[in-house]
Amino acid sequence: MNELFQFPSIADKSREGLLRVFESSNIPFSVKRVFTVLNSEVGTSRGKHAHKVCNQLICCVAGGVKLICDDGLRKKEIDMTPKTQGIFVPAGVWAEQLCTEVGSVIIVFCDQPYDESDYLRDYGQFLAFTRSI
Amino acid sequence: MNELFQFPSIADKSREGLLRVFESSNIPFSVKRVFTVLNSEVGTSRGKHAHKVCNQLICCVAGGVKLICDDGLRKKEIDMTPKTQGIFVPAGVWAEQLCTEVGSVIIVFCDQPYDESDYLRDYGQFLAFTRSI
Repeated sequence: MNELFQFPSIADKSREGLLRVFESSNIPFSVKRVFTVLNSEVGTSRGKHAHKVCNQLICCVAGGVKLICDDGLRKKEIDMTPKTQGIFVPAGVWAEQLCTEVGSVIIVFCDQPYDESDYLRDYGQFLAFTRSI
Repeated sequence: MNELFQFPSIADKSREGLLRVFESSNIPFSVKRVFTVLNSEVGTSRGKHAHKVCNQLICCVAGGVKLICDDGLRKKEIDMTPKTQGIFVPAGVWAEQLCTEVGSVIIVFCDQPYDESDYLRDYGQFLAFTRSI
């Protein structure tokens, strides 16, 4: 259901921190919106919605997050850390991010600006949507 | 020397973490490269270079960072936190980021892909460059 995209990652000297780079040539669309999620408590989950049109690329840049994707037929769980690949979550996929490590940070690249009408926040509605397309 | 850009920031319920959003309509260029820096030790500094062509937008999404900019004539220090604005650092400005808080994360948007020949890493060379333009 999901394609994996490899991003270059450069780790500098530890005292000066970890640098993680995303080049647009590796991002499969024009970026219209970027958001970060941080300071989640371990065991809490975010997301739990799908998009009708918006495609997203999700990257973990600190800690660890379990990404749970569901296209209405199959579920897929992917453990993400700063060492793993970015995950492309296309429109029409229900996604949830479960925080599994303290200090987790994810960065999400979107190919659409914010539009509340693009969100499917109800799972029943999402299933009806996937069956209609 | 620097212009300030205000980004929308949405803070969700604390258990589920802090969401920080960057819309491309607020970013003054087409994003070609994004990088994050995290896990720096307090008191360490990064950057300490200028670009000949590349413009950058620097945002602090966790902790605190002191941004020190120098255009060859004047220096400016700006304390950045997740509550402050993103800072536009144009080409021809020497910039340094000093980590002032544990767990700091910055995200940097660039209008150029990586090109080592665009970097001015020597301060004397940087001053010569600023005098030549």
